Formats: sequence, structure tokens, C-alpha cells
Amino acid sequence: MTTQEALQTFRAKIEALHALNHAMGVLQYDGETVAPPASAEGRGKTLEYLSGLAYEIETGPELNRAADFLAAHSDELSAQDRREVEVFRRETEFTASIPQAEYVGYVTLLNRASAVWHKAKAENDYASFAPVVQEIFDTNVRFARYYKPDQAPYDVALGRYERGLTMQKADAFFAALRERIVPLLKQVQSRPQVDDSFIWNKTYPIEAQRKFSDYLMDLITIDRERCSIGETEHPFTTNFNKKDVRITTHYHEQTPIYSMYSVIHEGGHALYELHSGDELEGTLLAGGVSMSIHESQSRFMENIIGRSRGFVQVILPKLHELFPEQLGDVTAEQLYLAVNKAEPSLIRTEADELTYALHVMVRYEIEKGLFDGSIRAEDLPRIWNAKYKEYLGIDVPDDRRGVLQDSHWSGGNVGYFPSYALGSAYGAQMLAEMKKTVDVDAAVASGDLRPVTRWLEDHVWRFGAMYDPMDLLERAVGAPFDPKYYTDYLEEKFGSIYNL
Amino acid sequence: MTTQEALQTFRAKIEALHALNHAMGVLQYDGETVAPPASAEGRGKTLEYLSGLAYEIETGPELNRAADFLAAHSDELSAQDRREVEVFRRETEFTASIPQAEYVGYVTLLNRASAVWHKAKAENDYASFAPVVQEIFDTNVRFARYYKPDQAPYDVALGRYERGLTMQKADAFFAALRERIVPLLKQVQSRPQVDDSFIWNKTYPIEAQRKFSDYLMDLITIDRERCSIGETEHPFTTNFNKKDVRITTHYHEQTPIYSMYSVIHEGGHALYELHSGDELEGTLLAGGVSMSIHESQSRFMENIIGRSRGFVQVILPKLHELFPEQLGDVTAEQLYLAVNKAEPSLIRTEADELTYALHVMVRYEIEKGLFDGSIRAEDLPRIWNAKYKEYLGIDVPDDRRGVLQDSHWSGGNVGYFPSYALGSAYGAQMLAEMKKTVDVDAAVASGDLRPVTRWLEDHVWRFGAMYDPMDLLERAVGAPFDPKYYTDYLEEKFGSIYNL
Repeated sequence: MTTQEALQTFRAKIEALHALNHAMGVLQYDGETVAPPASAEGRGKTLEYLSGLAYEIETGPELNRAADFLAAHSDELSAQDRREVEVFRRETEFTASIPQAEYVGYVTLLNRASAVWHKAKAENDYASFAPVVQEIFDTNVRFARYYKPDQAPYDVALGRYERGLTMQKADAFFAALRERIVPLLKQVQSRPQVDDSFIWNKTYPIEAQRKFSDYLMDLITIDRERCSIGETEHPFTTNFNKKDVRITTHYHEQTPIYSMYSVIHEGGHALYELHSGDELEGTLLAGGVSMSIHESQSRFMENIIGRSRGFVQVILPKLHELFPEQLGDVTAEQLYLAVNKAEPSLIRTEADELTYALHVMVRYEIEKGLFDGSIRAEDLPRIWNAKYKEYLGIDVPDDRRGVLQDSHWSGGNVGYFPSYALGSAYGAQMLAEMKKTVDVDAAVASGDLRPVTRWLEDHVWRFGAMYDPMDLLERAVGAPFDPKYYTDYLEEKFGSIYNL
Repeated sequence: MTTQEALQTFRAKIEALHALNHAMGVLQYDGETVAPPASAEGRGKTLEYLSGLAYEIETGPELNRAADFLAAHSDELSAQDRREVEVFRRETEFTASIPQAEYVGYVTLLNRASAVWHKAKAENDYASFAPVVQEIFDTNVRFARYYKPDQAPYDVALGRYERGLTMQKADAFFAALRERIVPLLKQVQSRPQVDDSFIWNKTYPIEAQRKFSDYLMDLITIDRERCSIGETEHPFTTNFNKKDVRITTHYHEQTPIYSMYSVIHEGGHALYELHSGDELEGTLLAGGVSMSIHESQSRFMENIIGRSRGFVQVILPKLHELFPEQLGDVTAEQLYLAVNKAEPSLIRTEADELTYALHVMVRYEIEKGLFDGSIRAEDLPRIWNAKYKEYLGIDVPDDRRGVLQDSHWSGGNVGYFPSYALGSAYGAQMLAEMKKTVDVDAAVASGDLRPVTRWLEDHVWRFGAMYDPMDLLERAVGAPFDPKYYTDYLEEKFGSIYNL
């Protein structure tokens, strides 16, 4: 075998995997968006077949012999090829550690879990979902043991979302947040509260909200030729290549605000995928490198940009136009305060920027317990509700607005939640660095976000998965990760809003 | 090899083909409905890979050796297994006659063609579409020659949609229609015209039309757990198994009538797929047997049921409720006459029952010419417009409302159009037979369509592809096909409406 031949084999097999993943991704997207409810069973069979094919290719001798050969001749490779081979071998080491039947079984379990979760949430019936949650976590524990028998299973799961992340690091990170956020929230709660009552007790037609989504996607510079928007119970972003990215939202007739920030959040994810370097297209390096870096982009757009004074000023005329009777006399300052009202609440995706990390902490601690066996899925409602009382001081009235609210566990995204808080912190550090060369406030207030998106494209998006997440962050901000940028940012912003 | 082993191999490979076809179908459905415009290229690559896999399995030695063995031991098989092996071998004879690269190339051509057609129609730019049309017809001619070198290529194409159909038979059928429909239309046009002006110059909000679609689907007994509705430029039905059927419609703000009849039409297709026998599920025999039988069901629901007096009476209260300002004072008789107004028009899918067959005739004659080379794709607008002038007496103002209106050719459905007229005629013959045991008018007027749908399920739907189309029809109506039931039906209905 020559290096050229090995590269050709490698390329062809990666393309085959890409095609299978594309097909499975579209089947799943279709299942989440428009497929009829009873379709889950047939989709499960097809996913089982396709994932079996993918497993065979990924762990098969042809691809792995080529990859091993390339790894042994890495000095003959370009930096990009070298990195791709490395990423492939790292990933396939995990896949190959799992017996094929279990690997395929997990794909069908998740397909079933998604249908069970949708029904359970709609019917506020956690009991029907509990066995599925337990099975998903048990499977993840088992897979972690196959892969790294010497490591704590949750460390393995965390590390698969964010290379290098462990419980020790996450504990320290959350402790640093808690130490500053909990007293800050107490101070905020002792001050006169923000009035957002003008938003409520009105009806905001879905058709007008759909138009608002189109406007927002344009504003944050999303290319609609390459990115569509759909409607789902729980908003998400998925992508098949850089010319085919999908975001979804959920419209509430009672307020346009929830959907608005979900569009901007998912839009941040989409921008990252849409601007991965052309030279990476079709390789394993195209698209976002990790969930934390991904969340750094989505939460940057949602909060740092979307909940800024300048942004609110820019979008106000469009809100006046689309909702003249509901919001016609609202001022920019009123709206700015309303979308930054800090108040413990039930739903993570609707939480304000300040209390958000506390929602994530609840989930992190529960995942830890499910992984080490100290928590059983059947006990989750009780534990969930107790933690919401402890950290946020509120009572959870039902599981639909409690433990059933998120789609992550039914989607197999266990170990994902810490990414949201980490990403928020990465974003704050990026903002500090960006401000050295970009007048961020002026750009946002002008309505032309391109100075901001250009910085993100140059420092983050275009690199895809060329660097490990921590390396990418350090390259972007010129220093190691430090959560104090995030807590400083929160103290400054909410100190000003609440006159602390 | 034992018969049992051969059956197991056969079953496993058919399931693999089913999974690949399911994935390709969902990719195509997604592409037609919600995928962003620029996604076509990536989808094309994935379809190319999957169709290559399917080709290899379908024409590969394992499956074909098993099928040949089973065919040689057909006396040991159940009637259903025997039929399935026969259908497989017939179908695969076609596939195997085409070189793999050309087979796969056609799948990617069609994926591209769909994107080109959408754009061409939106921009009224036939010139951009013409080379694609020519390539699609050329490919079909070439494939027909590979498969049956001794037959006229268009006969081969017709026979693949409707086993046994040839140009000779289609010519005779259309001549029989023309002989009765053309004079009938002349008589109708000599009479005072129906007034449908009360429908027009109003706005019918899409949200209310969506609710109306849900109501109609319930009324015609569609199980929404197993059938969803989407929105596309051109309405269609697709299905992946009997628990996953999709219909689409297109809403026009100027009238709810077009969407209404497309929902009932596609609903008729969906009912056929949803009620294929349980014992056929997962086999090649599940679902409709041919396009003409399929159209017999869709056009039966649309016209014989949906455009009847009883049906119009039943739906009127819902129309009053959803469109109180627009249609609040319309009577059932006014609406019945309006939806049966016979008048030459531009768009096939919006045509009345009487002129419909003339739209189909135009397409049939053009397909004949494209197949025998006497017509070139670049000349289609001129020829199309001339035929509309000749048969329907109207001028076509632009290609968007002319030759670009249908999605069939870009979808590779060449030889399909005659099915619409044949299906309409089959449906009329079924009605005559059904009336011997079912009081159709009373059932429809009661709003409970189950006596009608039960007859169709018992006589047509449950059999899937167990019988060839002509055999199925003869079993259902107890006599050979005779187009006079259709022309009699039209003469009686329109004779009464126009007092002839």
C-alpha cells in the first residue's frame, strides 16, 4: 500500500460513512419534525440496518488498515490529513470497543426513547419514561466501561463531549460559578423587580412569529439558501453538511420572546456549522469541534448579542410592525429590562442569563448520580424537584415542567448539559478578547453584525475540528480558559440593570 | 440450499432493500418539503451511495440465487411468497438490465432535476429546465431499450406503471373518451354557466385552511397516527410502510377549494397505502399495485365522493365556521355547482372532472413524441400551448402555468400521466359495482363514509400487490374494464348539472 492508495481508501470510506450518517440524520430530523407518530417502529428498523452498515465500515479492516498505515506515515501527510486520521482513530477506538449488536441496539433504543419522551411529556407521565432513562444511562455506563475500564464512567461521557473534561474539573468550574452567582442572585432579588408584565396576557399569532424568525435569521447573517427553520417540541440544530443546516423553534402564542431567543440560540449553532472552512468539507473535521465550543457560539449570539441594549434597539421596529396591538408602545429600555429580568423559573430554555447556570447544575448533579448508581431513574422527579427548591427556590408543579422538559436524555445526550455552562463561560472570555479589536456595541447597535461574525469566523468557525476544544479556545483568546470572565460579565451586566 | 434457507435469505435481503428505499424516500421527501435549497448537492451524493448499495443487493448473487431457487420450487411456497418472488424477479429483470453506473446516475439526475424544476417554475424559466427534461426522457428511452430491445420504448414505460398497457390500448382508451367528452363539453359550454364568483376576490387565511385539512382527513377516515400532512409546491403522497404515510398540499390564499380537493385526492392515495393487508407488511406486496389503481382510489375520493351533493352538504358547516366572512351565506347547492363548474382551464390539478381527461391527453401525446423523438424538449412550450388551444380552447399565458406546472417529469414519472385518466375510469366502474351493495349516496350524506371505505378496503386496498392491476380490477368489479362506465357517469352528472 502506498500513502496515496491509503488516502484514497480512507477518503472513500469516510464518504460512505458520511452518506450513512446523512441518511440517519435526516431520518431522525424527519422523526422529530413531521413524521406521523406511529412511524417510530419502521424508522427504528431502518436506523438499525443503516447503523449496522456504518459500524461495519467504521470498524472494518479496509478503513482501519488504511488509517493505521497513514498514522504510521504521518510525516508524509498534510496537517489536515494528519489531524483527520487522528480524529478518526480516536473516535473509532470508542466504537470498536462496543460489540456491534449493542451499538446497533442503542441506536434503536434512542429512536424508541424519542417517541416515548414526546408522549410522556405531552401526557405529563414520567412513569412511562423512567425505564427508558434508566436503560439509556445503564447503556452509557456499560459503553464507558468497554472503552475505558479504568476511568469513572461519567468522566468518559464528559470527555466524549469535551475532550479533557472530568468531574473534578466540572466540580471546580461549577463551584466557581456558584460562589459568585448565588450571592449575586440574592442581591438582585433584594432590589426592585423588573416589570415585564406588558408582554403577557396577550396573544401573538404564530404566523407573525414565523415572519419574525425569518427577520431574525437574516439579521444574524444566516444564509437561508443553506439553512431552514422547522418547528418542534424542543428547539435544536442539526446539520448534514455546510450547505444543509436546520434549526427548529417552538412557538408559544402567549409570548414571542421564547421563540425569539431559541431562534437566535440555534442560529448561533447554525452559523458555526455554516462557516466551517471549505477545505474541510466532506472530511471528519467539518463542523463544530465540541458541544462546549458549540454552546459558546449559540449562547454568545443568544445572550451577549441578543440580550444586549443595541440588539433590542435594532429589533424593536420589527416587533412594533408585527405586533402593533401587543407591543406598539413598548420602548427599547422596557424591552431590554424585560428580556434580562433575572428570576428563578422552571424551564431551562426560557431562563434568564443569570439563573441559567443553576438549571445546568441541577442536571449535572443528577447525571453524576445516575452514572455512579446513587440515583435511580424512578426517583428522578423527587430529586429534580428538591434540587430546584434548593438552588432556585421554586416548587415544580408537574413533571412536564420538571424532569420531562428536556429532550437530551431521550436523545442519548448524556454528559452534554455541562457544555451549556462551559460554553457560556467560553463566550464571555471570547467577548473580552474580541473587544480589543472590534467595537462590539457599535456593530450591534448599527444592525450590521458582520464585524462580530467575522471575528467569530476567523477565530472559531473556520477551523472546524482542526484543534481540540481547549486548544481552539486558547488560540482564539490567547490565554487559558478562566471562568472569571463569565462571572465578571454577569456581575457587571446585572449590577447595572439592578443598580447594585 | 433448502427452501427454508432460500426464504430466509430472500426475506433478509428484501428487508435490507426496504431499509435503503425507506432512507432514500425520506431524503427525497425532506428535499421536497423542508430542506434548504442548497442542500440538493449533498443529498445527491448520499442518494448516489445508497442507490448503489440497493442496486448491488437487488442484482447481487445472494438474493437472486435465492429467488431463482424459490421460483424453481414454487410449488412448496405459499401463494403470497410465490407472488412476491414473481414480482421481485420481474422488477429485478428491469434493474439488472441497466448498468450500475447508469442506474445510480439516473437517481442523482432526478435529485438535480427536482431542484432545477422548482427554480424554473418559480422563475418561469423553462429554458433552464429543457435540457434536464431531454436527459430524463433520453435516459428512459435508453433504459427501455436495455430492458426490452424489441418493444417501443414508450410501451415499455407505460407497462412499468400499468402492466399490460401499451400505446395501442391507451390510444383506443383516449379515443373513446374524446368521442364522448368533447361533444359533452361543447353542450355544457352552450348552456348558462355556473356562478362560482362568490368564492373569489376574498382572502382565506392559511391557518384556517390548515384546520380544514385536518377536518377533511378525519372525515375521509384517515388515521392521523399513521399519516401526516406537509406543504409543497405540488401535492403528492409518499409512504414508507403502512404506519408512515405522508400527504402534502399547497395552500392558495385566494381559495380553499384547490387545497381541499388536493387533500381529498392525496387522502385517497393514503387510504390505499394505510389499508394494505397486515400480512403483506414488509414484503414487496405491501401498498398499491399500480399507478392507475392508485389514481382510481384518489380520484374516486376526490370526485365521486368529494364532488358529490352529499359530501358538499356535510362539509358546509365546517366551511361556514372556518370562513364565516368569506362563505357564511353560501348554500350547499351553490357550493355543489361551483365545485363542479365545467370550464377549460390552465392547471390540471385544479381542473374540473369533465375537462380533466383533456389535460391528461395533452401530456400523453407529448410523452409519445418525446419517446419516439418526434418532439424535442426545447420545443415543448410551443407544442404544449398549441395542444391546450386545440383540446381546451385556451391560451397559455406563461410556462409556469403551462409546461412547467407538473412535477412528474422532473421526478422521473414518465409514462405516469395516462394513469390519471385510466384511474378515473376504473373508479367509475367500481362505483357502479359498489352501488349494488352499498347505498353510497346515503353513506356520504350521513358524514360516515365507512360503508364506502369498507367496500374499497375489501375489494381493493387489502390486496396490496397480490394481483396484477387488471386482475385486481376484474376481481373487484366482476367484469373486464370498460371505459363506458366513466363516460356514462360524466354524461349523467354533467347532464343534470347543466340541464342537458
